[in-house]
Amino acid sequence: MNLIILFEQDFTQDDTVKLEGRRLEHVLSVHKAEVGQTLKVGLLNGKIGIGLITHLSKDMLCMKIELLKEPPKPLESQLILAMPRPKVFARILQTVTALGVKKIFVIKTWRVQKSYWNSPVLSEEKLRDNMILGLEQAKDTILPEVRIVKLFKPFVEDEISEIIKDTIPFVAHPIADKQCPYNINKPTTVAIGPEGGFIEYEIDMLIKYGFIPVSFGDRILKVETAIPYIYGKLY
Amino acid sequence: MNLIILFEQDFTQDDTVKLEGRRLEHVLSVHKAEVGQTLKVGLLNGKIGIGLITHLSKDMLCMKIELLKEPPKPLESQLILAMPRPKVFARILQTVTALGVKKIFVIKTWRVQKSYWNSPVLSEEKLRDNMILGLEQAKDTILPEVRIVKLFKPFVEDEISEIIKDTIPFVAHPIADKQCPYNINKPTTVAIGPEGGFIEYEIDMLIKYGFIPVSFGDRILKVETAIPYIYGKLY
Repeated sequence: MNLIILFEQDFTQDDTVKLEGRRLEHVLSVHKAEVGQTLKVGLLNGKIGIGLITHLSKDMLCMKIELLKEPPKPLESQLILAMPRPKVFARILQTVTALGVKKIFVIKTWRVQKSYWNSPVLSEEKLRDNMILGLEQAKDTILPEVRIVKLFKPFVEDEISEIIKDTIPFVAHPIADKQCPYNINKPTTVAIGPEGGFIEYEIDMLIKYGFIPVSFGDRILKVETAIPYIYGKLY
Repeated sequence: MNLIILFEQDFTQDDTVKLEGRRLEHVLSVHKAEVGQTLKVGLLNGKIGIGLITHLSKDMLCMKIELLKEPPKPLESQLILAMPRPKVFARILQTVTALGVKKIFVIKTWRVQKSYWNSPVLSEEKLRDNMILGLEQAKDTILPEVRIVKLFKPFVEDEISEIIKDTIPFVAHPIADKQCPYNINKPTTVAIGPEGGFIEYEIDMLIKYGFIPVSFGDRILKVETAIPYIYGKLY
């Protein structure tokens, strides 16, 4: 927790918060902070700043808050991600949030198991919890927007053109001829398939709608490795 | 398992292997293969090729092996990694192996908990198991070399100059002025600190011995995200 995310309901006055639960535990056990010290804080979807500890006990942490500056710039990319195994997805959502992606489409493809859609990890509450963990890691405050898309074909046919407008759309594809470019400095859309990849029909359809297939060489990477790897190249 | 790694002891004849256990399970449950089909195989530290299934039952998989070509090129980088939490380390070792790093120094720094060194994840057997998983993922066969270094100061003072010779040595450091370069196309050494980072004394010492501190911007990334991110940029 490199930044403590604050919510509107934490505020008891304009500049004063009272925290309990997970954040209090963390401050006690990891930061090992004391009254008079300051901690890095950020208001969800707002500015970041510092919190001066005015009270700290095992039941409650009170801070006087000063919000000073804007959160880091978002990554200029939206991610289209085939739904991974739920346990892996939780970690990936944290990672993607930490990297600064602000729009994430979680989609069904042929090789995505139907059972994944019943996982509690896709509940609004869990999505939010995992994104908060990513924000805390990266010292960001802006919650990404997640959309769950359970039908591939109408998503591509009816919506994708509008979604990728004004971006360069890439699809990660291990057997593509073209290598992923570096330091692109432009908005992108990045599509990443499931373990096992997109099927040919899906790749063909994405290409038809303008996606550029790019590879990383001979090595097949896990989705959770491929995402930071491709964003390392692009930005 | 995108490639089945074979060991010398799997061979019953020059070109025939008999497999049981984990690899057999995987072929039955994930590949759902049948007699007459071929699977991608690779001999540990040797060539990759195909295995023609000649027998498959719940007790045994037999294949006729043809080894055809060299494994993918290694990544021209050695990694110096502060020991992470053991559970995370297992995953990171798989990732680093999949990325193609062939030399890994796992080191003690100030912020590494002493208890980590007692973890079974650092046993030769577990190190090897996790690296094999990485090789299977990336369709590689060359096992990396791992060295465990429990004292930071003598490692830097007595050995680091020789280790980084003929490489460009970088240390990931969130507050560095210089951004990590792209597509460097030269051998590198990359040093990554623990969660919480290197302490100032450690960074200063690495700089003194020639390391270039580089950052990724304002965001603090987890070690497991930072590694593919930096290698995405460098190669």
